[in-house]
Amino acid sequence: MSTRTLIRGGLVITAADETHADVLIEDGRIAAIAAHGSSVAQGWTADRVLDATDRYVIPGGVDAHTHMELPFGGTFASDTFETGTRAAAWGGTTTIVDFAVQPRGQALRAGLDAWFAKADGRCAIDYGFHMILSDVNEGSLKEMDRLVEEGITSFKLFMAYPGVFYSDDGQILRAMQRSADNGGLIMMHAENGIAIDVLVEQALARGQSDPRYHGEVRKALLEAEATHRAIQLARVAGAPLYVVHVSAEEALAEIATARDKGLPVFGETCPQYLFLSTDNLAEPGFEGAKYVCSTPLRPKEHQAALWRGLRTNDLQVVSTDHCPFCFTGQKELGRGDFSKIPNGLPGVENRMDLLHQAVVDGHISRRRWIEIACATPARMFGLYPQKGTIAPGADADVVIYDPHAEQTVSAETHHMNVDYSAYEGKRLTGQVESVLSRGETVIDRRTYTGRAGHGCYVPRATCQYLG
Amino acid sequence: MSTRTLIRGGLVITAADETHADVLIEDGRIAAIAAHGSSVAQGWTADRVLDATDRYVIPGGVDAHTHMELPFGGTFASDTFETGTRAAAWGGTTTIVDFAVQPRGQALRAGLDAWFAKADGRCAIDYGFHMILSDVNEGSLKEMDRLVEEGITSFKLFMAYPGVFYSDDGQILRAMQRSADNGGLIMMHAENGIAIDVLVEQALARGQSDPRYHGEVRKALLEAEATHRAIQLARVAGAPLYVVHVSAEEALAEIATARDKGLPVFGETCPQYLFLSTDNLAEPGFEGAKYVCSTPLRPKEHQAALWRGLRTNDLQVVSTDHCPFCFTGQKELGRGDFSKIPNGLPGVENRMDLLHQAVVDGHISRRRWIEIACATPARMFGLYPQKGTIAPGADADVVIYDPHAEQTVSAETHHMNVDYSAYEGKRLTGQVESVLSRGETVIDRRTYTGRAGHGCYVPRATCQYLG
Amino acid sequence: MSTRTLIRGGLVITAADETHADVLIEDGRIAAIAAHGSSVAQGWTADRVLDATDRYVIPGGVDAHTHMELPFGGTFASDTFETGTRAAAWGGTTTIVDFAVQPRGQALRAGLDAWFAKADGRCAIDYGFHMILSDVNEGSLKEMDRLVEEGITSFKLFMAYPGVFYSDDGQILRAMQRSADNGGLIMMHAENGIAIDVLVEQALARGQSDPRYHGEVRKALLEAEATHRAIQLARVAGAPLYVVHVSAEEALAEIATARDKGLPVFGETCPQYLFLSTDNLAEPGFEGAKYVCSTPLRPKEHQAALWRGLRTNDLQVVSTDHCPFCFTGQKELGRGDFSKIPNGLPGVENRMDLLHQAVVDGHISRRRWIEIACATPARMFGLYPQKGTIAPGADADVVIYDPHAEQTVSAETHHMNVDYSAYEGKRLTGQVESVLSRGETVIDRRTYTGRAGHGCYVPRATCQYLG
Amino acid sequence: MSTRTLIRGGLVITAADETHADVLIEDGRIAAIAAHGSSVAQGWTADRVLDATDRYVIPGGVDAHTHMELPFGGTFASDTFETGTRAAAWGGTTTIVDFAVQPRGQALRAGLDAWFAKADGRCAIDYGFHMILSDVNEGSLKEMDRLVEEGITSFKLFMAYPGVFYSDDGQILRAMQRSADNGGLIMMHAENGIAIDVLVEQALARGQSDPRYHGEVRKALLEAEATHRAIQLARVAGAPLYVVHVSAEEALAEIATARDKGLPVFGETCPQYLFLSTDNLAEPGFEGAKYVCSTPLRPKEHQAALWRGLRTNDLQVVSTDHCPFCFTGQKELGRGDFSKIPNGLPGVENRMDLLHQAVVDGHISRRRWIEIACATPARMFGLYPQKGTIAPGADADVVIYDPHAEQTVSAETHHMNVDYSAYEGKRLTGQVESVLSRGETVIDRRTYTGRAGHGCYVPRATCQYLG
Repeated sequence: MSTRTLIRGGLVITAADETHADVLIEDGRIAAIAAHGSSVAQGWTADRVLDATDRYVIPGGVDAHTHMELPFGGTFASDTFETGTRAAAWGGTTTIVDFAVQPRGQALRAGLDAWFAKADGRCAIDYGFHMILSDVNEGSLKEMDRLVEEGITSFKLFMAYPGVFYSDDGQILRAMQRSADNGGLIMMHAENGIAIDVLVEQALARGQSDPRYHGEVRKALLEAEATHRAIQLARVAGAPLYVVHVSAEEALAEIATARDKGLPVFGETCPQYLFLSTDNLAEPGFEGAKYVCSTPLRPKEHQAALWRGLRTNDLQVVSTDHCPFCFTGQKELGRGDFSKIPNGLPGVENRMDLLHQAVVDGHISRRRWIEIACATPARMFGLYPQKGTIAPGADADVVIYDPHAEQTVSAETHHMNVDYSAYEGKRLTGQVESVLSRGETVIDRRTYTGRAGHGCYVPRATCQYLG
Repeated sequence: MSTRTLIRGGLVITAADETHADVLIEDGRIAAIAAHGSSVAQGWTADRVLDATDRYVIPGGVDAHTHMELPFGGTFASDTFETGTRAAAWGGTTTIVDFAVQPRGQALRAGLDAWFAKADGRCAIDYGFHMILSDVNEGSLKEMDRLVEEGITSFKLFMAYPGVFYSDDGQILRAMQRSADNGGLIMMHAENGIAIDVLVEQALARGQSDPRYHGEVRKALLEAEATHRAIQLARVAGAPLYVVHVSAEEALAEIATARDKGLPVFGETCPQYLFLSTDNLAEPGFEGAKYVCSTPLRPKEHQAALWRGLRTNDLQVVSTDHCPFCFTGQKELGRGDFSKIPNGLPGVENRMDLLHQAVVDGHISRRRWIEIACATPARMFGLYPQKGTIAPGADADVVIYDPHAEQTVSAETHHMNVDYSAYEGKRLTGQVESVLSRGETVIDRRTYTGRAGHGCYVPRATCQYLG
Repeated sequence: MSTRTLIRGGLVITAADETHADVLIEDGRIAAIAAHGSSVAQGWTADRVLDATDRYVIPGGVDAHTHMELPFGGTFASDTFETGTRAAAWGGTTTIVDFAVQPRGQALRAGLDAWFAKADGRCAIDYGFHMILSDVNEGSLKEMDRLVEEGITSFKLFMAYPGVFYSDDGQILRAMQRSADNGGLIMMHAENGIAIDVLVEQALARGQSDPRYHGEVRKALLEAEATHRAIQLARVAGAPLYVVHVSAEEALAEIATARDKGLPVFGETCPQYLFLSTDNLAEPGFEGAKYVCSTPLRPKEHQAALWRGLRTNDLQVVSTDHCPFCFTGQKELGRGDFSKIPNGLPGVENRMDLLHQAVVDGHISRRRWIEIACATPARMFGLYPQKGTIAPGADADVVIYDPHAEQTVSAETHHMNVDYSAYEGKRLTGQVESVLSRGETVIDRRTYTGRAGHGCYVPRATCQYLG
Repeated sequence: MSTRTLIRGGLVITAADETHADVLIEDGRIAAIAAHGSSVAQGWTADRVLDATDRYVIPGGVDAHTHMELPFGGTFASDTFETGTRAAAWGGTTTIVDFAVQPRGQALRAGLDAWFAKADGRCAIDYGFHMILSDVNEGSLKEMDRLVEEGITSFKLFMAYPGVFYSDDGQILRAMQRSADNGGLIMMHAENGIAIDVLVEQALARGQSDPRYHGEVRKALLEAEATHRAIQLARVAGAPLYVVHVSAEEALAEIATARDKGLPVFGETCPQYLFLSTDNLAEPGFEGAKYVCSTPLRPKEHQAALWRGLRTNDLQVVSTDHCPFCFTGQKELGRGDFSKIPNGLPGVENRMDLLHQAVVDGHISRRRWIEIACATPARMFGLYPQKGTIAPGADADVVIYDPHAEQTVSAETHHMNVDYSAYEGKRLTGQVESVLSRGETVIDRRTYTGRAGHGCYVPRATCQYLG
């Protein structure tokens, strides 16, 4: 039997519209939206009525870049699918797309099965998978076609990490050609890892082992170079391209140039590049290790360029690249050798709030907030209109957001399974109040009411952001 | 007493979403939208139910650039507000923003009053006004502030037509500075008219009097130059800028460059630049006169650049610059001297269909069609969300569009008051079936049911497309 | 009867070569150059032998931009052709090209005759004339052809100074078209004077009357805009273009963009833009007035761009725009109103030394020094190979330069007729030791041995720097 | 005892000057240059007087890119140092810089010794060596320093030919860093060979085996990509970069962009890219094999871009990449598989004449001809002023060139040891008449008077074209 939920009196914000409207939910989906105060709306009854007066009613966030339980550098990202998706819900995110990893020398399927096993029955919110190609060969190319049919429609390649995830330009070209045929979307980690590894070796040989050297050797020029190269290879292949975690102004410029030509090239950035900088990497002691991720944090001047890119739509998506490692015991693996610090930051819980702060600070509009955090990631990765908007027929993944609440970010209060926050002490205006996932309340006025296993795997269509 | 209209079973398309949904209209506004087949939707009753099965349900078009009854070159544009707005309705456009003209040496108010008088009680659909500044001086600058308060929030300046509408760079700078303060938006006709007039004189002196020379003397480089200059002046003034009727690839490139820098620079193009070319201007006899407008038609190669600009959002709006002159008796004023041909083309009736054809041809997506023809013009000129979308609370300006109908454009069947069509014989897929303006049916399954005087003046807010 | 001079043992530097060679002069011309120490050289005898051991032997400087006795702002530039050319000789410059001014409403010829009269019999070194077009009309356009034939092959237009020198875009286009036919070269003062005058009026109305506001109102963007516009007009006309006194990085960027397309667009800068900045304009009291010139000095950051432009050959020439006004009695006309400060700086004596300092500082190479200061200006303005190089057949305009001498620039020791130095106190390495003009010694080991009237008028060929 | 040669009455053309002058040669060097007809010149006596009336007197050509006897694809380039340098002399080239090849797994020294052995005692003209690094490792990096000291100051790397000459980005970066320290100049074959090899394999798998597919798989975008990458790596290393055989407009654009930033990036093109195109590669039968070289010939449109690049100095040098393979027996190795066609064209004899034809055709000026073919290659590779100019003290490598002679290029009349000409049947205006190498006549009015062994090895200084 169907249940009806009514969210009354809020300002409904989507990527396109801001409307004072009541939202009616039936059977886990948005059934209808009516002008607040209209006779239709007033006539509505429901099993449960949520008061959203003075609140925003927004689509649940879609975080298209997370790494729960990722094995990296001899350890594992500290959030499981259970802890990580619960924290996501706390932060107003109702869908994640995580990365299954092909084990080198094995089939894509082997990696995918492993990731399904990790996630199954554990997630608080819905989830999908991208596939990391660690080993592009005839076999894995053929598997790509089948995965696309099964709803794994995006494939990540690395121009960095030789010997681990690295693909050479021939492998990249082949994978792009295949995706041009099967509709998959190539996601690229664009850094010239071959050159970077030379600089790493030289820095260590000079005794430069502190975390800040992580930022110095992974040069902006080498991110820009790889971005340019990936774009050219995609042109040769006739394939679209999505560049992950863009952090350097020069890399963004390559994307902007491609887009001016009308090429289907897309860029994602992450909150850490918008709010943190090499100043953090240079924090005294070994504190900088908390901020070690790749692409690395850049000097502050790059932030303005990234915000501009988000405004001009040269960057389309903000994801987290959530990949937490505890300072104690994990980040510490790199004491005395920055190259041994596990790469990654926690953030899945902070994204929606940080981006709302950007609205408060005037960097982006409210609608753009929803576009880059919900609607476009959903479209980009084939989840639209099921996810990413509030429209009749869509999944009732809805956040009631209090734009006036004040909060201070802290590891003491966050819900991610990691012993520090990258934004410790940062004061924010705005906070998630309640969260619905397919109509079920997961967060109820700052109380977790969800459960592991509520979240379902979502097979994805191919990219809906083309044309 | 309120009446209720229900549009059932269509595909509702907005700039953001495509939803199979029923739309409920109360008191001239969109009251609610519900998933088609949902229990809510099925429970709705209405005074009138419109069946939109297999049809698109789209926002009424917003044509932000028309010139009804414009005095030009010793004659008047042949559509009155009555005939022109009726034709607009036939073509699925439910709002126009026309240009009131300041008479040289007089106050803005004088021009505005005249245009109000022309439109009052005659329009089939809603209308607003921009103001053409023919004479920037201390008085007219002060008047700008008051007009903004009254809902005339955009001001057009000309870098062409010396002695008629032309403003020099100092006047332009002053008007831009003023708009930076009062929130008005400067719309620019960007052609270097001073240089063009030299080329006109030289062409005529060489005996080059045919219509095609109109296109040759108004060089793409001189459109690009003026576009660049307008952008720089706007930067100096700290003001946003909207460039009207962009036709040259080189001019578009200047806009794209500015936008890459994050500058608030916007561009409009028109169907004639997307579908016609200098080939038309060169049609034998005096036929080319039908296609004389400024900026002029360009060689065909420019079309691809304009389509790309629409896709990359370097161009945001497609308006018509509707300014019809009959071939007989009006265009003929320029026989033997192309500079005497009244500048302008009819098009207000054709825009929505031509752009749907662009969807069919693969140039743009359906949502982008609505964005460039409805949503963005509404936002750009302060009409959102009243106009330009289908959302609870918005005016019920709705078009039921048959995407499969076949039609052939012709002066014999069009409703504009002009004796030729610029697209004569062009076959199109898709046609407006019914049109509602604030809930009232204006076109009912290809029958005109509207009336002069239904259309209301709409005061406008300032630009909503910034940030 | 012929006299022979032999310059022995120096390092002969031209734009192309650096050779340890002896230079033999006969009848005022370079007769031969021989490897130092070769039997040929050792066999040479001469009436006079100059020892250049440890010295550079370089072509005399060609300063293509001076304004002796220019009437401006109710006063006259303080150097006459006599004092100015003598100072030029002291500074190692052996040719100037000064600007004759067309009086508004009169013929070019009238202006030219006046300038011939001012210079005749007074110059210490050779001189030519450009013509300033203050009034482009049918008559002056026709006169251009005749002037080109007579050796006045370059014409300056102003996009600034409305009501004084200003030409509108139509006049500019016509003059460019004419020059495209007759081989003349258009030199452009590229600043949007119409817009600048608005900013001047507004600044003064705000009480901003100090010299530094001269720099603030003459915005870099408005120099860039005008530069872009001049380039586009030149493209329309099919004419080459020489932009004078480029000071803004953004203007240089426009030139570089044009040159990348292969367009015949050239740029000149001046020592003041390379060595001075808005810091000088902001000197306390009224001291800033000493540095008032147009285009204005820019913030220091622009210097690096200009040096780079000189290295990449996006800038080809360094001239002085020598136009001195005494601080006392002349610059003071603008106390309380920066717009009344006569525009111009002294510099004809300092150019060669300042550019040698740039060699010492590593900005440019020795050969590039000679290229931008001697060879290219000669080629650009049709004086090659008579001037600008040391080659058999060339005029024996030769400087013996001591690269190791130390000097301090000061009004107390300079020879220009002006009561201050723009470079007061600046320490330089390198100094002119002796100067020959057509074989006659004008400066003999830091003693002036020249005379008024030695300098001859030099008719010029058309631009030799094209293709 | 010294001998004196006098070249009388010609037009002496260098990169900088054109002078009617007599040139006196003593002991193999230019002793002096005197104005023709001057008393000095008339007083000169000599053992031998060459009449150059109506002739050009130009520096001998410097061809900085030849591959005599290169082992490639299982065969050897068909010109030995003896036949190749003799042909060079016939074509007015008096210095070549050939490439010694490091054998994989061996020391640079091993390769260098082999090349010295091949050239010693066999050359008709002077020669130097670049070093090809096939194997960048600690050992070869150290050897670079020693080679620079010995006059081998430039090192070629390949981004193409995996498994043969290919270096990865880490090796490239290390070699560039080393060259930044030791003053060496990195020369780059910039094509993404890893991606190209994928396309080669795919083309062959599709049965596309004809020579024209050589051009199709080696895409312009992949030349541009590699060029961009090489530039970025050079920026990271702080090293200058010389890109060899630029053929694609897009690659040139990358170089131009770098140069606009003031980066020390240089580009070479070759006559084949200026005069031939993919039309030649597509000649019927197997004829296209004659034109197989890498980078490949491009569609004709690229030629205009390359000429423009030569005019704007975005390209600085024209070399031949002379690497001849006979059609019979050598090119034929690739019948049925274009990837097996030995890569290379003959051209060392044709370069000076083809470039003179470019002067006749208006692409470049006479001085620019000498600059790109003589002076700049000499400066670029540390041979100046010994080679590349006619100036006192320089080696007397002089060509008397008849600008009016007519000739038809043909394998029947050329002197290169190869059975076809890439320019067969092409009619040219201008021909080498006589050639001196260090004062000795090698070609005497179209008769070869030189001898194997006259040519000497020339150790080179480091790059003289920086700053």
